[in-house]
Amino acid sequence: MSAAADDAQGNREDSGEDRLIARYFRPLATDPGAFDLRDDAATLMPPPGMEVVLQADALVGGVHFFPDDPADLVARKALRVNLSDLAAKGATPAGFLLTLALPAETSEAWLQDFARGLGDDAAAFGCPLLGGDTVRTSGPVVISISAFGLVPQGRMVRRAGAQAGDVIVVTGTIGDSALGLLLRTDAAAAARWKLDHVERGTLAERYLLPQPRLALAKAVLEHATAAMDVSDGLAGDLAKLCGVSGVDAEVDAAKVPFSAAAAKAIAAEPGLLQGALSGGDDYEIIATLPAAKLGALRSAGAATGVPVTEIGRIVAGRGGARFFDHGQQLAFERTSFSHF
Amino acid sequence: MSAAADDAQGNREDSGEDRLIARYFRPLATDPGAFDLRDDAATLMPPPGMEVVLQADALVGGVHFFPDDPADLVARKALRVNLSDLAAKGATPAGFLLTLALPAETSEAWLQDFARGLGDDAAAFGCPLLGGDTVRTSGPVVISISAFGLVPQGRMVRRAGAQAGDVIVVTGTIGDSALGLLLRTDAAAAARWKLDHVERGTLAERYLLPQPRLALAKAVLEHATAAMDVSDGLAGDLAKLCGVSGVDAEVDAAKVPFSAAAAKAIAAEPGLLQGALSGGDDYEIIATLPAAKLGALRSAGAATGVPVTEIGRIVAGRGGARFFDHGQQLAFERTSFSHF
Repeated sequence: MSAAADDAQGNREDSGEDRLIARYFRPLATDPGAFDLRDDAATLMPPPGMEVVLQADALVGGVHFFPDDPADLVARKALRVNLSDLAAKGATPAGFLLTLALPAETSEAWLQDFARGLGDDAAAFGCPLLGGDTVRTSGPVVISISAFGLVPQGRMVRRAGAQAGDVIVVTGTIGDSALGLLLRTDAAAAARWKLDHVERGTLAERYLLPQPRLALAKAVLEHATAAMDVSDGLAGDLAKLCGVSGVDAEVDAAKVPFSAAAAKAIAAEPGLLQGALSGGDDYEIIATLPAAKLGALRSAGAATGVPVTEIGRIVAGRGGARFFDHGQQLAFERTSFSHF
Repeated sequence: MSAAADDAQGNREDSGEDRLIARYFRPLATDPGAFDLRDDAATLMPPPGMEVVLQADALVGGVHFFPDDPADLVARKALRVNLSDLAAKGATPAGFLLTLALPAETSEAWLQDFARGLGDDAAAFGCPLLGGDTVRTSGPVVISISAFGLVPQGRMVRRAGAQAGDVIVVTGTIGDSALGLLLRTDAAAAARWKLDHVERGTLAERYLLPQPRLALAKAVLEHATAAMDVSDGLAGDLAKLCGVSGVDAEVDAAKVPFSAAAAKAIAAEPGLLQGALSGGDDYEIIATLPAAKLGALRSAGAATGVPVTEIGRIVAGRGGARFFDHGQQLAFERTSFSHF
C-alpha cells in the first residue's frame, strides 16, 4: 500500500485506504445496500416478517491462525466461523461488515489473496460484503467480522429451549480441528498416531478451513428446540446450551462421530478423546430436538450432504453436560477453550 | 482475568471469557434482542417501513488513541465515532456489536473503566450492546464496533446526492481535535499558540471525546441532499462527497467555524489553517441542502444545541472541493488523513 497521492488542488484525491478498498474490496460489495462501498454506511431491509440475526467473531494472527497460513484460507476461515453461527441459529446469510487491522509490513500479495478468498466464500455462501473499516496496527492482523442473517420474526433458534426428553445431535465429525492443530505444533504426533498422508491432510484442513453447515440451517430452524455451533469444544459448548436451557445432557462418547483419522489417533493415544471432545474449532452444529423429529432432520441432512448423528439425551437437571465412555463418566480436565 | 475454573464433572463450568462478559458487558446488553449475551447471536427487528443502517469503525491502541488515555474515554470514543456516522446518515441508533482484542497485560481496572464508559454512552445515546466477541492479541488493544441504526426505507442520507446550487453546512467547529492531537505530541505548542489552560483543555478534550451529532440526525434526514461525518479531515471528506455526487464544492475558509482556541492557534501560526481543515477526527456533520431549507436546518440546530454554519456552495463540476482564503485558492499538502 502506498501513501496518499497528493493533488495540488486537493481535488479528487484518493487516499491509500481508498485505493485499497477500490482494488481489493469493492468487487466483493455486490449487494445494492453496500452502495459500492462509496458511502459511510450500508443498508439492509429484511423482507416482511423476517428479522435480522447479528453476530460478530474476531480472528487474531498468532492466536486463531498461524502467521504463515495462506491469506485466502485465513479470510475464508474468518467469514466461515461467523457463517457457522448463523447456520446454527437457523438463519440465512444476508451480508457482513469487515474491520481489518493490518500491520505496516502487510504485502500486496497477502491482501490480494485475502480478498480473493473472502470474495470466493462471500459468493459461495451468498453473504456479500456490506462495508467496514481498514486500520493500521503495530500488532498482528486482527480480522473482525459482523455477519447478518435473516430468520422469520421471533424464530431464531436459541441456546435456551432444550427440553428433557429431547435427543442431542451433532453434525459432521468432532475433534478433527483440535487434532489438526496438535499436528501443527507437535511434528512427531502424526507418526505416533500412525496417520498416513491423507489422514494428516484431513485433520490439518479441518483446522484451516471450517465448513459452515448453512445447508442444514432451514432444517435446524424447523426442527430444533435449541442449537449452537461448536466452536469452543463440544463438552463445554453443550454445557453452555444446557446451562441456559436449565436442563442436563447425557452423552455417550462412543456415539460421538469421529473421522477415520481422528478415530485412529484416539485409538493410538486414548488420552486424545478428551481433547477431541473439548478442543474447539469444530464449527459443527449441536442441536436438541424431540425424538419424533429426528427422522426429518436426518433426512434433511442426507439431502444436503450434512451427516447428522444422535449422541445423547436431554434430561431434567440444572445445567450440565455429562459424557460417558462405556458407562464411566468422563472427568474433563477442561471442557472448553477460553482465551482468558 | 483468571483462567477457567475447572469442575471435575465438566458441569456448569464458566470460562474466563464467560466471566469477563458476565461481569463487564452483560449489564450493557439491555435490549431484549441481545438475549442477555447468553446466546450466539442477537436479533434486530426494524419497525414497519424502516430499514437497518450498518457501519463499522475500529480503533487501535497507539494509532487512534494513546495507550495511557483513560479507558472509559477510549470506550466512549470507540462508540461515538460509530454514532457519528449514523447521525450523518440520518439514522436513529438501534444497537451495536463489539469485538475486543485484548493484550494479556490488560488489567481488571482498565476493563472495568472501559465497560463503564461504554455503558454510560450506550445508555446516553440509546444504543445498547447487542453482542460481540473478546479475543487475545499479542499486539495493542483493537476495538471494533459495528453500529446499527434505523431510517425509513430508502431514505438513508447518502454521500451521493449533492446538487449544484446547494449550500454546504457543517456542524460545530472544525480542527479542534487535530490541534488537540498536536498539543499531545508537541509540548511547546500551547505556549507558542498563546493558549490558556481552558483553551488547551478544549482542544485536548475534542481529541479525546467526539460529540456525535445525533440530535441533528432527524433534521439531516429531512433536509439534506447529501451528508457524511467529517472524520478524516474536512477538505478530503468534502472532496469524497463531491466525487460520489459528481459535483464540485467551493468553500470560503473564512466561514469555516473554529473554536476560540483553534482561532487563536491559527492566528498565532497561520500554517495551522491547513491542518485544521484537513486534520481529521472532527466528527462533525457536513451536509448539502437547497438554500431554501437552510433556515429549517438552522432552526433544528438551534433547538438541539448543535451549531450549523454555512461554509460554501455546490457548483457543477467533476468531483472536487476547493477552499478559498480571502479569494486565494488553498493548495493543500494533503487533504485528509489516511492510514495507508
